[in-house]
Amino acid sequence: MDEVVYNIYGSQVTDYLEARNVLYRILPLPTTEENKSMDMALKILEEVHQFGIDRRTEPIIAIGGGVCLDIVGLAASLYRRRTPYIRVPTTLLSYIDASVGAKTGVNFANCKNKLGTYIAPVAAFLDRSFIQSIPRRHIANGLAEMLKMALMKHRGLFELLEVHGQFLLDSKFQSASVLENDRIDPASVSTRVAIETMLEELAPNLWEDDLDRLVDFGHLISPQLEMKVLPALLHGEAVNIDMAYMVYVSCEIGLLTEEEKFRIICCMMGLELPVWHQDFTFALVQKSLCDRLQHSGGLVRMPLPTGLGRAEIFNDTDEGSLFRAYEKWCDELSTGSPQ
Amino acid sequence: MDEVVYNIYGSQVTDYLEARNVLYRILPLPTTEENKSMDMALKILEEVHQFGIDRRTEPIIAIGGGVCLDIVGLAASLYRRRTPYIRVPTTLLSYIDASVGAKTGVNFANCKNKLGTYIAPVAAFLDRSFIQSIPRRHIANGLAEMLKMALMKHRGLFELLEVHGQFLLDSKFQSASVLENDRIDPASVSTRVAIETMLEELAPNLWEDDLDRLVDFGHLISPQLEMKVLPALLHGEAVNIDMAYMVYVSCEIGLLTEEEKFRIICCMMGLELPVWHQDFTFALVQKSLCDRLQHSGGLVRMPLPTGLGRAEIFNDTDEGSLFRAYEKWCDELSTGSPQ
Ligand SMILES: NC(=O)c1ccc[n+]([C@@H]2O[C@H](COP(=O)([O-])OP(=O)(O)OC[C@H]3O[C@@H](n4cnc5c(N)ncnc54)[C@H](O)[C@@H]3O)[C@@H](O)[C@H]2O)c1
Ligand SMILES: NC(=O)c1ccc[n+]([C@@H]2O[C@H](COP(=O)([O-])OP(=O)(O)OC[C@H]3O[C@@H](n4cnc5c(N)ncnc54)[C@H](O)[C@@H]3O)[C@@H](O)[C@H]2O)c1
Ligand SMILES: [Zn+2]
Ligand SMILES: [Zn+2]
Repeated sequence: MDEVVYNIYGSQVTDYLEARNVLYRILPLPTTEENKSMDMALKILEEVHQFGIDRRTEPIIAIGGGVCLDIVGLAASLYRRRTPYIRVPTTLLSYIDASVGAKTGVNFANCKNKLGTYIAPVAAFLDRSFIQSIPRRHIANGLAEMLKMALMKHRGLFELLEVHGQFLLDSKFQSASVLENDRIDPASVSTRVAIETMLEELAPNLWEDDLDRLVDFGHLISPQLEMKVLPALLHGEAVNIDMAYMVYVSCEIGLLTEEEKFRIICCMMGLELPVWHQDFTFALVQKSLCDRLQHSGGLVRMPLPTGLGRAEIFNDTDEGSLFRAYEKWCDELSTGSPQ
Repeated sequence: MDEVVYNIYGSQVTDYLEARNVLYRILPLPTTEENKSMDMALKILEEVHQFGIDRRTEPIIAIGGGVCLDIVGLAASLYRRRTPYIRVPTTLLSYIDASVGAKTGVNFANCKNKLGTYIAPVAAFLDRSFIQSIPRRHIANGLAEMLKMALMKHRGLFELLEVHGQFLLDSKFQSASVLENDRIDPASVSTRVAIETMLEELAPNLWEDDLDRLVDFGHLISPQLEMKVLPALLHGEAVNIDMAYMVYVSCEIGLLTEEEKFRIICCMMGLELPVWHQDFTFALVQKSLCDRLQHSGGLVRMPLPTGLGRAEIFNDTDEGSLFRAYEKWCDELSTGSPQ
């Protein structure tokens, strides 16, 4: 259990387990990005080993943000060549992203998630009430990944974020206790749709054999940006800056209208996400795409929106368009707001 | 590459790679049972990372005994959540056993193979000429696992080992360069049959979900014996002692005739394998079976031969029979030869 989460929810979790007569041992750990290492996984494994579990029937439970879920998932994957584990995400980002799919991992040799496995949890328990204690900036961070799915696959989700983005930030995804009869609850609808959409993409490609992935949107240039400015930008913030630029690319080559572009950028701002960054240079774009070309079997495989909630993978975007889009993006957004 | 193997075959392997213009880097390592740890796996991973491989297309190659294959396999499983790897077994044991299947692993917290994965290699390259430098005792060690498959599943293989056991030990599994026309080559036939039989058992149960496993024969009591007397017995030797006792159990409950029992024990001796050990006490039998009961879903799942090359899983062997078999086994074999 992430120790920050333990400090806030530890007694509630303990009560829950006690009430059900569970034989358990909680291990509060500083599962931060800096500690996301094999060392931490081994530390967990020593405790698991001492506690003594039956690997067939007794699960390890990870309760925390994406870092905690990833490390514990790796530890469980390795113990006796696979021990069942359960994910309990406590941040918005991990709730909609790391809770889905089979990836586990730790950082290694200064590279993100360089070591890991593809082993799905036996279950993911989703409880939005954990999110109430997440700082506003980290809510926005999670919203970026939600917006990614919306832009790629779900116009309805995009429109929901356009309309209710501020409300979601304010209410921290806690449903009102009494909802008006015919009103949808944005917190429950948006998280459900985001997860279902994510599952739709991940399920047929659990081991990432197919390199054409819409979920890569926003993740082509952002890893290099994130590394370059660390720790200035959160993951979702870097992703959003990447997405904002890509929206300009789509517009430049005629896939999106000016109006659609404008709506998307406005929505991003409503979600309190950055849409431009000075370290996102054109040289960085070129370098990132060049690297990707080499690691993606010779194709750049660029997901681009082709409308609101629709997208395709492109391999033939020319340097000229990329550059014109870049100039326009800087022109319009470097001052902080769209024209 | 196991450094012992490197010292003997390093230049030949280098020549092979050079002749094919392979871009490579050989890492000779002391891959011994004592070093079979996550530390060693991480050391390998650092070198892999520095060398820089494309995880989709460029394999890591493990050349050595079972320890080397297991550690390197684990490292490859983890790198970028899975990098292809190739197994090149250089001991008889690893040739017929660790070369097949999907298991990787390292020791942890004083327990054998406690951490690992199930990831199959993209290929296993089998070259029997490595075996020529294996000490005679280690050949016998490998023969024990071969005999296991013979007793469980293949009468023909058993009879081959009965007749050609000594020849295989003498010739270290090297085929005569010119074979008489209508003679079978025991080295190539026995290894092929052993591997095929193993594959037959492992392929439908690659992740060991089914706990009823004939390949567990000889592995019910031996792990505790092996641990207890370490390093006095090699793995295959401990397995053989376990098998010898189980043959007495089979005979006691009427599954094997005295004559069949006698043939099996004689064959074991011909393979220069121990058939009895003073530390294999009845208390050890009880403790091991009791542990197994707990970790195998409440059933003891004891593979027992029901004839030469035939076997079944039993869950109802009574303590009386186990004890009478134990006494008879000690009576007949503690002096070193069957009556
Ligand atoms: N496996 C996957 O598919 C996947 C998907 C996306 C991201 N990830 C990984 O997830 C990580 C990012 O996840 P994250 O954003 O959740 O980061 P995180 O786990 O570092 O959590 C962010 C911060 O929030 C704190 N926190 C967690 N829950 C809280 C709560 N309920 N209330 C208050 N504070 C809380 C944590 O202590 C931490 O300081 C990255 O390492 C990324 O690689 C994995
Ligand atoms: N993954 C699996 O399915 C599987 C199956 C069986 C055994 N194993 C593992 O394999 C290990 C035992 O394998 P092993 O018996 O090969 O032990 P090993 O790897 O320790 O090798 C035995 C000795 O032989 C040396 N050696 C290797 N090749 C040689 C050669 N060609 N000439 C001379 N010396 C050579 C090694 O340096 C070592 O000292 C155990 O750790 C066991 O857990 C794994
Ligand atoms: Zn992301
Ligand atoms: Zn064995």
